[in-house]
Amino acid sequence: MLTINTERLLRLLDNLAEIGATEEGGVSRPALSEADMQARAWFKEQAVFYGLDYREDSAGNQSVILPSEDANAKTLLVGSHLDTVPNGGRYDGALGVLAAFEALLTIKEARRKLPYHLECISFTDEEGTLVGLLGSSALCGTLTAEDLAAPRGGRERLLEGLKRANLTEEGLLNARRDPATLAAFLELHIEQGTRLEEANIDIGVVTSIVGIRSYWIEYIGQAAHAGTTPMDKRADAFWGAAAFAQQARDMVMEQFYPGVVNIGAVELSPGAFNIVPERARLALEFRHGSEGELNAMWAELQSLARDIAQVYNLNVQITHSGSIPAAP
Amino acid sequence: MLTINTERLLRLLDNLAEIGATEEGGVSRPALSEADMQARAWFKEQAVFYGLDYREDSAGNQSVILPSEDANAKTLLVGSHLDTVPNGGRYDGALGVLAAFEALLTIKEARRKLPYHLECISFTDEEGTLVGLLGSSALCGTLTAEDLAAPRGGRERLLEGLKRANLTEEGLLNARRDPATLAAFLELHIEQGTRLEEANIDIGVVTSIVGIRSYWIEYIGQAAHAGTTPMDKRADAFWGAAAFAQQARDMVMEQFYPGVVNIGAVELSPGAFNIVPERARLALEFRHGSEGELNAMWAELQSLARDIAQVYNLNVQITHSGSIPAAP
Repeated sequence: MLTINTERLLRLLDNLAEIGATEEGGVSRPALSEADMQARAWFKEQAVFYGLDYREDSAGNQSVILPSEDANAKTLLVGSHLDTVPNGGRYDGALGVLAAFEALLTIKEARRKLPYHLECISFTDEEGTLVGLLGSSALCGTLTAEDLAAPRGGRERLLEGLKRANLTEEGLLNARRDPATLAAFLELHIEQGTRLEEANIDIGVVTSIVGIRSYWIEYIGQAAHAGTTPMDKRADAFWGAAAFAQQARDMVMEQFYPGVVNIGAVELSPGAFNIVPERARLALEFRHGSEGELNAMWAELQSLARDIAQVYNLNVQITHSGSIPAAP
Repeated sequence: MLTINTERLLRLLDNLAEIGATEEGGVSRPALSEADMQARAWFKEQAVFYGLDYREDSAGNQSVILPSEDANAKTLLVGSHLDTVPNGGRYDGALGVLAAFEALLTIKEARRKLPYHLECISFTDEEGTLVGLLGSSALCGTLTAEDLAAPRGGRERLLEGLKRANLTEEGLLNARRDPATLAAFLELHIEQGTRLEEANIDIGVVTSIVGIRSYWIEYIGQAAHAGTTPMDKRADAFWGAAAFAQQARDMVMEQFYPGVVNIGAVELSPGAFNIVPERARLALEFRHGSEGELNAMWAELQSLARDIAQVYNLNVQITHSGSIPAAP
């Protein structure tokens, strides 16, 4: 049995964690940001330094390759992603890429013959600061022009990122790889909850993947002077937003366990101390392991959003911002 | 009795409203912004065009003057402000300045002798996008270095604005005028509520001015992955913020009528769809005509903010952001 070089793997993880390191001890490498571009360059350097083949596809997915002697062999993909959420963790994504990289190095050093081409891959924008699963869905051929037209991170930010990485929308939409050439995909990932830790278990195997749905919920009322407009004459968009946040939370906890709901961002406008908010925009995301339960959650959340609009004399606009189906 | 030139006044109001006009039909001229600088230049031009004396003090307050023949006469100040809140109304402030300006022109044209110097004044940053009542409190000598150290609009924005207008903090703190030289201050203002309108009354006289208190309320929890952190293990700062918004509203409506409360801005961080908010910062403002009631409101609001922090397992930080005492 081969054993990896633990020291080397930890050193690689440490070096990578310095790129985009934040004061709070986290890492900020949003997809195709300057920090992500640095991480990408660093990753390429490591491949070159250790004498491995390096390749990039037209979706910006980065691959380090240890080929089989059999040119017709299929490819076993192993990897994850180097981008992070803002102030994310140092292991999420990074561990999956660098553990795969270390595995390739170990096998290369042991000069083992391979029945498959081994390919350590880092996917573009897995985290969704731009689109979400951008590189992996491009590789699978499931990315559509629609996904790119109204990305969750905003269209402008997507175009800036693509420009920075010298990528094009056309390239993204043409990055599909023939599944017949692929043997499997494997990803090592840290535990993001505390269940294994609490049960004192070293490693778990994923048996299903939750579905994710994201929406912008925007309440629209009437801007007014916060001093002279009596409370009972206001159409304060934030009143609706606050009521929705509370009731959505209670409803999901009571009716949809272990499903979860999050409001991760809020924008009020005009946005001044002394103006009653005219608009309140909420970034809503909810998750469940079952598509049926996701549908039920969404039906309830929508009707909740509309009921609250009526109570507070507001309008509400709901905009879809991305879905990932549950994989049972 | 003199009669003003209504056409001229309306034309002046129309011309001014074009500076900073927004698509929504409002006006955005935050204090010392580019648009405000344009309005200031326009106002100076009008004074020069109509042959009136123009003067600026070290707080950037703009004055147009019609002097008395008696050099020792006191000065009657009449005016308001040209700055607006974001997407504010076209008459708020502007009416007070331009009605005074039109009154000066009418008196000048009628060659009346004046027992007082007449001074039409426009105060710097009345609205508080920087500090609030900045120019008028400088003129009164009540502005302090503390007010400038932590202004409600942020220190950076204040410094940018001062630079743009070629003003200094020292100048602001030394703009006091001797009250012995002043006869009175008079301001014409549009009605900002609907009471006169509903009662079909043309004009009202202000008999008291509400006090205003502003605070930043910041809830601090724990950032976490919005998919893998169970709902009952979250310390979501927005849960606290939403509960505070709702309960503060109900409490003020039930216990402190006709006092009002407003949450005009909300900032969540890190601020992404898929991260449980670690911090939620609320711009809170409340008003009442009685200082005693303001004190009682603040005691209740603070204890509410703290109780909610406990319920949702959050910390709360409260930062004072400005007060204007009630004038009974």
